[in-house]
Formats: sequence, structure tokens, C-alpha cells
Amino acid sequence: MITSTSNTQIKNLIQLQKKNKARKEQGVFVAEGRKLFEEIKELDKSKVVKVYFSEQFVKIQKAEGIEIENYAEKIPFEIVQDNVFLASCETLTPQGILSIVKQPVYSLDELLHQNKIRLLILEDLRDPGNLGTIIRTAEGAGVTGILLSKECVDLFNPKVIRSTMGAIFRMPFVYTTDFLKTLSFLKTEKVRIYAAHLESSVVYSTVDYRGNTAFLIGNEANGLSRESTALADQTVRIPMGGQVESLNAAVAAAILMYERAKQLEYKF
Amino acid sequence: MITSTSNTQIKNLIQLQKKNKARKEQGVFVAEGRKLFEEIKELDKSKVVKVYFSEQFVKIQKAEGIEIENYAEKIPFEIVQDNVFLASCETLTPQGILSIVKQPVYSLDELLHQNKIRLLILEDLRDPGNLGTIIRTAEGAGVTGILLSKECVDLFNPKVIRSTMGAIFRMPFVYTTDFLKTLSFLKTEKVRIYAAHLESSVVYSTVDYRGNTAFLIGNEANGLSRESTALADQTVRIPMGGQVESLNAAVAAAILMYERAKQLEYKF
Repeated sequence: MITSTSNTQIKNLIQLQKKNKARKEQGVFVAEGRKLFEEIKELDKSKVVKVYFSEQFVKIQKAEGIEIENYAEKIPFEIVQDNVFLASCETLTPQGILSIVKQPVYSLDELLHQNKIRLLILEDLRDPGNLGTIIRTAEGAGVTGILLSKECVDLFNPKVIRSTMGAIFRMPFVYTTDFLKTLSFLKTEKVRIYAAHLESSVVYSTVDYRGNTAFLIGNEANGLSRESTALADQTVRIPMGGQVESLNAAVAAAILMYERAKQLEYKF
Repeated sequence: MITSTSNTQIKNLIQLQKKNKARKEQGVFVAEGRKLFEEIKELDKSKVVKVYFSEQFVKIQKAEGIEIENYAEKIPFEIVQDNVFLASCETLTPQGILSIVKQPVYSLDELLHQNKIRLLILEDLRDPGNLGTIIRTAEGAGVTGILLSKECVDLFNPKVIRSTMGAIFRMPFVYTTDFLKTLSFLKTEKVRIYAAHLESSVVYSTVDYRGNTAFLIGNEANGLSRESTALADQTVRIPMGGQVESLNAAVAAAILMYERAKQLEYKF
């Protein structure tokens, strides 16, 4: 059992949650909580580095007649003293499970060589809660992949992971090194790009999205850049009543993705 | 200038942000930031109790040739030393403005005596970010009022206020004392209630929402109660692909509200 916060594994767990750099160097991320661990058990076991259980969690399992060895299903694990576990967690009321998982890696090629291409493209999205919610909604709406500008928040940020509710394990994504070049490339691949833009004259729900399509969503505060907007095949607008200046980025993305899903008769 | 965190006004500001009880007793709430203050200036001045500016904010205004007296537009204000101001704020990078505003009060009668009734009903919604986003989206989607069960998170929680992006000042709402009784009452008022439910056999986008309607949205973790679902005229389901178990509550509400808005041809 790990009993000290100066244990190197615990120090590393904390670093992995705090620092994008540490995650990148080790090629892993941390998934907190029971629901995510249940998803992890479904993964190829070679993708899971290690799982940490709190002493309390082990006790509760035992009281229910479950030995932690069996619960872990051959995934390597450590038991951590409760106060040390709490200090290792981002959340205030942790569920007693922290898992270190290898980062999945996808290529643009994989995203584009699919039967149907239903993409989402995110430019400089900054809020981790928004990104996590978008990934969750995207899976629900039948999106086949997500492209992100490299200025977007790190997808392996623990808050993003929690907000995805497990969709992180299933939604292919690529951080582009050259965002505008990738947009141009999509056009040569016959993917039509629809940019969500407040000043567009075209209402989003009047457009046919049944082909190979991508929705382009901009930064929370500043929207899309002029350069990326110029590369879209069409700008579209979500009409707004009242004095609302804009919608939340995750909400705007959801409305567009579900309009496309509806046009495809929810054949995911 | 206020120079100490033990100043009674500062103590009160902190209490008002932390405690629902303090807000209720005084019938006020705190709005943080510049954008919300710009909205506040548009209100009837009798609704504004006081505004607090950080020393730094006053300096920046002055450097731009604006005297703080003029910027405040006859709203009573105090200047607060920067470190004291920071200690009074919920956010880590405050913009230098905290406003105390009277809580608006609406009646169910007001919500129901409108030309068109487009309601949203929230049962036990717990996440302040979700509630704020829902209020913002609701204004955009032409919702005429929001009904909340009394177990919902406090709408005057500072995180809700920030997430509304100003919609808090314009969206009528009522916390029901008896939630189920209010749902029954809506039915006698010929408002059709559509409950978002994962197990409904009816796809949301196949229903006609052009009459007087209300969408019923449940708790983030547990969805709607059996009792409230039973009082709906119709349950509706948002189809989901992949292995997504549910959508975020604010996302589900947005998809439904925008389907209704579309059917009404965005005539808000």
C-alpha cells in the first residue's frame, strides 16, 4: 500500500493531472472515477498502464464480497491510503479510482478513410468542460472524428476526460499541426465544411448535410478566425432571439450536429 | 476606499456569493464582471444596490480618460483595494467589477399570461454551469419562461449568473413550491408538456411543438422522476449513436428548444 504523498508514483499521478507536458512525454492520461474504469476494462488491456484504488474503495468492495484482485480484472493496480489518495485527485469527492491509460493516437488518414465522413472541427476551443461535452455529444450524434487546432485545450486534461463520460475512448481525433492547411486538404477530399458564424445570412437548418460534411466551430470568446471562415464552403447561422449575443460553443456544436443527425435519419 | 477584508461590506459580498441563505434574506445577488455590469446599466436603476470597483479598474478607466463617477452612471459605488477586491471574488482573474443587484421576482401567472407560451421545466438540476447555459440558450431559442423544482441549484449562484452571460436579467423564472401540482396546473392551462426521456419510443423531431408547449428536463444523474414523467403529455427521446448513455442536460435542452424554435420558423 502507498502511504505517502512523496511516493514517486503519487507524485507522477499529480503531475499527469496537472501538466499537459508530463502527459505528452509519457504518452498517457489519467481517468478518474468508477464509470471510466468500467469503460477501461473494455479496452485492450495493453492500453492500461496502472490503476490506483483508495483503501476505502477496497474495503467497500470487500464488504460486498468482491476481492479487489478480481475487480481489477488483471489490470496492474496499487492500493493507496485514503488521505494520500485524496491528495492525488482533482475532484473534491473522489470515487476511489484513478487509472493511467495510454493516449490513443489517430491519423488524419483514418479520419478520412471511412464510409461516411461526419466531422467536427474545433478552432482554439479553450474550455475543458466545453470540449468534453462536445466529444460526448459528438459520439451521440454520430460524428466520425474530430479535428482540433493545436491551440485548443488539451483533450487529455482531466476535466475534459470527466466531461466526455467515456466518449474519449471511442471518438477518433487529430490535433492538426497546420490548421488552415488541413482545412484546405479536406476540401480536396470533397468534405464540405460548414462554419458556424454569427453573421452568416444562411440559417443552419436550411442546408443539406447528408454528404461528407464537417462543422467548423470557433473559440468561445472570439469565434472563428477570418482565415478559417474563408476556407469553409458555407457559413451558417443559428438564429437567436432576445438579446443573446452568442450561444455556448458546446450548445452551438450540439445544435448543428443534431441537425445533421436528423437529416441522416439518425442512421449512425 | 475599502482597504480591509474585515470591512462589513466586503464580508457581506463574500457571504452573498457563497451562501444561498444570505442571498435569500437580502433578496439580492452578485454579478461579477464587466459584461454583466453593462447589462446592469440598462436596468431600472432602483434594481441596483451597489457596485464595487477595484483600484486597478479605476486606474485603467482614468488612463483612458474616463472618470469612474461617469462610468458608474449614477449607480452607487465603492472603490476597493486590489488585494481586498481579489479576496472578494469567486473567479481567479476578476475584471474589477462586482455588482449587487436585487433579485427579480416573477409569478407563475406572468409566465402563463403571454401570447405564446414556450416554457422549459427543470427538475432537480444540480450543476450551476448547466443551469446558466440553459438560461442563455433558452433566451436564444425564444423560451418565454423557466419553471424550476425547488431542489434545483440556486439560480443566483455566482456560477449560474456568469454562465447566463446576461440572460439572467431577461428570462422570467419561477421556483415551484409544489412541482407536481404545478405540472398538473399547466395541463389545465392547456400547455402541452414534453418530457425528455431516454426510454421514450417517440423521436423528439417527429413531434409538432407549435402550440403552447413546455419541455421537461431532469436531473443530470438520475433523469426525470417517475411522477413528473407521468404528468407529461408525451415523452420524447433524442436518438444517440455509439455507446453514449445520455447527453449533457444543457445539450439535451438545447436540442429540444431549437427544434421548437425551428418549427416556429425562428419567429421569437
